[in-house]
Amino acid sequence: METEEAAVFHPIGRVRNGITDRGHRGWRGVKSEIVVDPAFAPSLDGLEGFSHIIVLYWMHESRGPAPLKVHPQGRSELPLTGVFATRSPRRPNPIGLTIVEMERREGNVLRVTGLDAFDGTPVLDIKPYLPRDSVAGARYPDWVSKLNEW
Amino acid sequence: METEEAAVFHPIGRVRNGITDRGHRGWRGVKSEIVVDPAFAPSLDGLEGFSHIIVLYWMHESRGPAPLKVHPQGRSELPLTGVFATRSPRRPNPIGLTIVEMERREGNVLRVTGLDAFDGTPVLDIKPYLPRDSVAGARYPDWVSKLNEW
Repeated sequence: METEEAAVFHPIGRVRNGITDRGHRGWRGVKSEIVVDPAFAPSLDGLEGFSHIIVLYWMHESRGPAPLKVHPQGRSELPLTGVFATRSPRRPNPIGLTIVEMERREGNVLRVTGLDAFDGTPVLDIKPYLPRDSVAGARYPDWVSKLNEW
Repeated sequence: METEEAAVFHPIGRVRNGITDRGHRGWRGVKSEIVVDPAFAPSLDGLEGFSHIIVLYWMHESRGPAPLKVHPQGRSELPLTGVFATRSPRRPNPIGLTIVEMERREGNVLRVTGLDAFDGTPVLDIKPYLPRDSVAGARYPDWVSKLNEW
């Protein structure tokens, strides 16, 4: 397989929320700022019109080879599952994806709620959440209903 | 801003769908295979239980500096909008994101419907679509309702 070509990305901004405890749980209500490189501030124009956005970030502390399979949320009572069937940060390309609520945009800063990323996390991309991203009636395996709040 | 550190990712697989026409429109019903590096086949275990998955791919033909703002879908009648408020492939880090329907998994191959990526596109990550990804009652600006099917 031709996997030799590498994709090289540069952060467009950083997460600021003061959360540095790597054991932190419970992100749903966490308020964060996404501080975007001022050069890209014009590229945020129009995000004000969306209630939700998709944040792609680099889980830059996840280094070294990822396991092929994991127990979701590290909980041994949940089935050993391929990493691509989980949202584990330990994955071949550690790109995090979270849909967050847009509170406000102020220049090059977005204020959002529900971003599960530590303070200082590099942000790679921001996308608007579109109607087609909301799937009604999707099906999940049983273990998904046992996940803790992220 | 400390944006000097680069994220380097390697494709985990490729899209196969025979679509090479860069002017192709209408992806909703397109059937694709995602051919994953056989070394990662075990990491797909468990995806069979999901009806939908999230595919992150590298829009590797999008080179050179991205514009700061674009007309969505290149349509001048839609407002000039910051690239981060659109799904334009011309963006600082050209990572594509599509939620697709899982048809079947066969070893290291996923058969999916609705992936809007050309034949040969490098895939960076695959994630399960979880209940929290489905936002009810999200709000959008008016122009979103005027988008063509992607």
